[in-house]
Amino acid sequence: MPTKTEGVEPAARGSAWRPGSAKIDVGILGATGAVGQQFIALLANHPWFRVTWLAASERSAGKRYGDLSWRLPTELPEETARLSVEALKAGAGPHLVFSALDSSIAGEAEIEFAQAGHIVVSNSRNHRMDPLVPLLIPEVNPEHLGLLPLQRKVKGWSGAIVTNPNCAAMPLVIVLASLRTYQPKRVLVTTLQGLSGAGYPGVASLDATANVIPYIDGEEQKIETETRKILGRLVADAVELHPVAVSATSTRVPVINGHTESVSVEFEKTVSHEEILAAFRDFSGEPQKLELPSAPQPPIVYHDAPNRPQPRLDVERGGGMVTQVGRLRACAVLGHKFVLLSHNTIRGAAGAAILNAELMAARSLLG
Amino acid sequence: MPTKTEGVEPAARGSAWRPGSAKIDVGILGATGAVGQQFIALLANHPWFRVTWLAASERSAGKRYGDLSWRLPTELPEETARLSVEALKAGAGPHLVFSALDSSIAGEAEIEFAQAGHIVVSNSRNHRMDPLVPLLIPEVNPEHLGLLPLQRKVKGWSGAIVTNPNCAAMPLVIVLASLRTYQPKRVLVTTLQGLSGAGYPGVASLDATANVIPYIDGEEQKIETETRKILGRLVADAVELHPVAVSATSTRVPVINGHTESVSVEFEKTVSHEEILAAFRDFSGEPQKLELPSAPQPPIVYHDAPNRPQPRLDVERGGGMVTQVGRLRACAVLGHKFVLLSHNTIRGAAGAAILNAELMAARSLLG
Amino acid sequence: MPTKTEGVEPAARGSAWRPGSAKIDVGILGATGAVGQQFIALLANHPWFRVTWLAASERSAGKRYGDLSWRLPTELPEETARLSVEALKAGAGPHLVFSALDSSIAGEAEIEFAQAGHIVVSNSRNHRMDPLVPLLIPEVNPEHLGLLPLQRKVKGWSGAIVTNPNCAAMPLVIVLASLRTYQPKRVLVTTLQGLSGAGYPGVASLDATANVIPYIDGEEQKIETETRKILGRLVADAVELHPVAVSATSTRVPVINGHTESVSVEFEKTVSHEEILAAFRDFSGEPQKLELPSAPQPPIVYHDAPNRPQPRLDVERGGGMVTQVGRLRACAVLGHKFVLLSHNTIRGAAGAAILNAELMAARSLLG
Amino acid sequence: MPTKTEGVEPAARGSAWRPGSAKIDVGILGATGAVGQQFIALLANHPWFRVTWLAASERSAGKRYGDLSWRLPTELPEETARLSVEALKAGAGPHLVFSALDSSIAGEAEIEFAQAGHIVVSNSRNHRMDPLVPLLIPEVNPEHLGLLPLQRKVKGWSGAIVTNPNCAAMPLVIVLASLRTYQPKRVLVTTLQGLSGAGYPGVASLDATANVIPYIDGEEQKIETETRKILGRLVADAVELHPVAVSATSTRVPVINGHTESVSVEFEKTVSHEEILAAFRDFSGEPQKLELPSAPQPPIVYHDAPNRPQPRLDVERGGGMVTQVGRLRACAVLGHKFVLLSHNTIRGAAGAAILNAELMAARSLLG
Repeated sequence: MPTKTEGVEPAARGSAWRPGSAKIDVGILGATGAVGQQFIALLANHPWFRVTWLAASERSAGKRYGDLSWRLPTELPEETARLSVEALKAGAGPHLVFSALDSSIAGEAEIEFAQAGHIVVSNSRNHRMDPLVPLLIPEVNPEHLGLLPLQRKVKGWSGAIVTNPNCAAMPLVIVLASLRTYQPKRVLVTTLQGLSGAGYPGVASLDATANVIPYIDGEEQKIETETRKILGRLVADAVELHPVAVSATSTRVPVINGHTESVSVEFEKTVSHEEILAAFRDFSGEPQKLELPSAPQPPIVYHDAPNRPQPRLDVERGGGMVTQVGRLRACAVLGHKFVLLSHNTIRGAAGAAILNAELMAARSLLG
Repeated sequence: MPTKTEGVEPAARGSAWRPGSAKIDVGILGATGAVGQQFIALLANHPWFRVTWLAASERSAGKRYGDLSWRLPTELPEETARLSVEALKAGAGPHLVFSALDSSIAGEAEIEFAQAGHIVVSNSRNHRMDPLVPLLIPEVNPEHLGLLPLQRKVKGWSGAIVTNPNCAAMPLVIVLASLRTYQPKRVLVTTLQGLSGAGYPGVASLDATANVIPYIDGEEQKIETETRKILGRLVADAVELHPVAVSATSTRVPVINGHTESVSVEFEKTVSHEEILAAFRDFSGEPQKLELPSAPQPPIVYHDAPNRPQPRLDVERGGGMVTQVGRLRACAVLGHKFVLLSHNTIRGAAGAAILNAELMAARSLLG
Repeated sequence: MPTKTEGVEPAARGSAWRPGSAKIDVGILGATGAVGQQFIALLANHPWFRVTWLAASERSAGKRYGDLSWRLPTELPEETARLSVEALKAGAGPHLVFSALDSSIAGEAEIEFAQAGHIVVSNSRNHRMDPLVPLLIPEVNPEHLGLLPLQRKVKGWSGAIVTNPNCAAMPLVIVLASLRTYQPKRVLVTTLQGLSGAGYPGVASLDATANVIPYIDGEEQKIETETRKILGRLVADAVELHPVAVSATSTRVPVINGHTESVSVEFEKTVSHEEILAAFRDFSGEPQKLELPSAPQPPIVYHDAPNRPQPRLDVERGGGMVTQVGRLRACAVLGHKFVLLSHNTIRGAAGAAILNAELMAARSLLG
Repeated sequence: MPTKTEGVEPAARGSAWRPGSAKIDVGILGATGAVGQQFIALLANHPWFRVTWLAASERSAGKRYGDLSWRLPTELPEETARLSVEALKAGAGPHLVFSALDSSIAGEAEIEFAQAGHIVVSNSRNHRMDPLVPLLIPEVNPEHLGLLPLQRKVKGWSGAIVTNPNCAAMPLVIVLASLRTYQPKRVLVTTLQGLSGAGYPGVASLDATANVIPYIDGEEQKIETETRKILGRLVADAVELHPVAVSATSTRVPVINGHTESVSVEFEKTVSHEEILAAFRDFSGEPQKLELPSAPQPPIVYHDAPNRPQPRLDVERGGGMVTQVGRLRACAVLGHKFVLLSHNTIRGAAGAAILNAELMAARSLLG
């Protein structure tokens, strides 16, 4: 049975979190990996959540977190440094847990935590395409949270699992969602993905230095399938996949943080460049309306300079939560093309999960 | 009046160069830039050509070449080091000159040399799209050399200008040519281009380090238009542009040498992956048949490993003259997709021009 | 005659700046270069200073600053973006100007501004070794500001020039100052300097990528001589050079920001590692005592982890103003050795000058 | 019992290898690692040696070598690709084996091979400081091969172990040896080491990209101690350590191949820069005299250009076997300083061992 967060019932569990309420305790599964560290960095000073419990594989369990290797440029918060790393034992730890587990163990571990009553807000890929698991981007498909009652019923879980998409799929879907009214029909994307997306130690430096690796295992399929689920409609307790055809090529480039994507899109409806620019500018969603703490304002930023966005100069904009677009122009094959940039471990991973949890808190779904 | 190459008439000027003939003297216009240096490196020990004359802008003129900064990992040939850099004066220098001039001055300078009777084999972009100038890839469109008599007549030149394509267009065209029988109809390409393509000093290190620049001025248009000219048919003294629609996005990545390209193609005719692989394998052209010294044997190499070709590991294969392909698979949008790699300063620049000159020598077109 | 800062007399000009006073207007000479941009970034939201005037060479003069290329990852402040770039005309602009001018023009330009009554707080190298110009590190030699009355008298300036040291000399001097009581006698240092130290466009990417350049023009001499001046004593209106012998080798490495230095030191007095660590820990100076806005607290941080400090992970610590040390151990040749890291465009350039101006404001020397 | 090399007795085993003799079969222990691959690349087309046997840890044993991942830019020789990887079983394989084993297993494995009668020419660190094992640089201390009879007698081995130094110690020792007549007394060195020195996968790309790691485990001690052994005199069956004091700081920089070293030296005897330059130029040793196939001619090259040698431009010179020096100038602390460059996996590893074996072959010590 998960520990209860003192004094925050019912505010944080049965209803929406409200300013002035005590912070909600959260745990992190897989706290020692690259994404786990990013969770900790982003949750330092979070207005709603407080990291009180860290779990990881057996190798690290029992150690003081501050004695492990911290590999982010921001400083490890002192109060997190003092925590011990716990074993991955479902039932222990707070009601709300973020999962940054490696996919080799996330599948079973997350189910155990959901069974034990935890709300598992996961960045792992394992359950993303499960028809009963919301694959959530709060600006795009908040209504997919409507899957949760059936999820609990069918799976028999007292908790729940909610996931966020693959880091390269994330910005593509956000941009396509902003253009949904014009009905995207066919999408061709080539990604130039940063190294942090592969975790730590991840890509060997001899492979990354002054090189391009034209392949990332499993990545293209995730982009192609997750996009269709997230853009899909929730109809009678099921998500109908969106009909858009997506073809992806994923490459790894020697960039630390930031996925750049070259995108061409064909729409069902005629649309002008001015309309597309307006759609980018006007795009907004529930996180912006609810003023969720991690919501980028606005979610999409368009760069007029012809050589932007660039990872080194732009990836940290808006706290790494903004989807950046540039170079909108005609595509001789599909009609329109542009370039995207997104921070893969923030908007594409830990920040995405935190925003999901914020939406659930605001909707009183953390109970 | 260009100096004559002693003793090599008529072998090298009025007819094909033949083994045992004396080497043909060549000059290099723009000898001090990045491509100029690559010409010198590739022509060291060339069996047919001998560098005897170097010309460059006024800043370097009069200096001993060996006293300038040599920026290639291969060693500067001693006999080239001893040459003085001459001014860019048409009429001086050998009959055959390679041009590595910057486009800011190549336009006029190359015309002056052609007027003065030189055969100008140029890597510069200025005259590529001139309807009377062959934009030549010996494996693809050797028949475009048929433009030369009309070029001389219309322009009133006693010499001639022959060009090679842009470094990013080069491998795309070679691969499309190998598949010509299936009639490429629409092509979407995203390039990840190496730094040497921008010359020296070129891209600032603060822009290149751990970064992607999603824009290269003028590059996309070159890829889109040059491809259509090279694949076009020579009909009655004019090249009919090929109808293929090409849409390109060009990016700069922190790679020293090597352009990687992510390509999707739609064909008019149905074609299987086996047929495409066979087309790559069987592709060959005049350079291979004539066994030209710089001809790659074979011109296209396909990699079975899923994560290849990679610039750091593969770009030097076949002396930098081979077009390398990998990752052929279905494209949900256009039918087929794959990844290319080509050495941008060898197959995409100096090596391309040298192969053009070799073809002209073999066809007795250097007279 | 420099414009007066409205309403801030005498607080900011005749006496120390005090909380609650209006901000002091400042101008930036060389506002478009790499260090000029860093000044703007660091002065955004500065509690004492407000950027109201930007000057640069003729090429940029007359343009709106926001229309020029901004090359820092932080966002250009909107109110700075609205300023026009002015010509480098002494007498125009605020009383206090920061100089980020290129050394090719800083020499004369700074003198003109000082003659016209400006306080020039300069990062340029031109006047650093002038016996009448303070080469200032507020933690190390604040008393060198005592040169100013004689400077004005001898030079006949109504304004003044104050400089900060070379970016690679800066952390070395700070660390040696912390150990001054043990009398550093001989110092051997090899620097591994980041690319931003060369300005923009600076080092060509073809020279920087996957490479080391074992030479930086003029850098070694600056380290060797500036160190001796800064550590020197002010005796009767002159600085006596410190007797320490410094030997430097400067290299350029593919790092964006951050100079790493490998340092060996021989002391006149015997000192233990514990005493050295204590000296690092206890080091503090006027900026800390006066709580100047840009003062790092503490100025020196020692890393226990054997593989730290590292530029990518550590350079931004303490806002880029902290000098970081690690790997203290015995040196078989000189006695003690360690590794340093410092942010070259913050603590080593713009941040250094701002701290200098803060000290002058606090000491009522901006009048 | 090691297999015999057909037909090459006694030429290759009991006496010196001579032109016209059949090639000597060699095996490689640890053939799948980074150094193992470098051995294979360097031995392709070797005039004396022929790779006929590859051994590696159990994970790879039984596989066809060509089916494993080849990570060098040069092509894997077809005849090596066809070999199967054998288990590390002493007694199997040719008489002469090169060892590229990881130090975690090299210690015992090499002893087993020596006991079983193999000549083990090793790049591993395990036995380098064993008083009975030659730590050999053929240009520097060929007479240390005189340890072998005692080694066999004391250890009871029918084979032998000969080692080469650490990759960062190598060029330092070569240069100090060239200056031996002036009696080097104290040496301070800071190394900037390339990534390939850490093997594969080695350094994580997130640690290497745009970063410096100011620490390499165990490296500094190797430089400090191995230098003294190699420069030591062989007196009555034992090597007297040379009295030079060496202090090293080792750093890792984002360079693929090449260790750059900043070196300061104090000599017992007075020496001028001209004498030092002459010593570099005139240095030569047994490999040059015997014209061993891998001997660099000359062993040391001095660069006059102030910004050389550089890894990207120079590391492949002389087949990666030349020690390159530049920037000789006065050192205010120790008298003289300069910069070195050496190819760490060729002159510093596989090439070093091959040269050792060539010397042994020429001296009839492979019997």
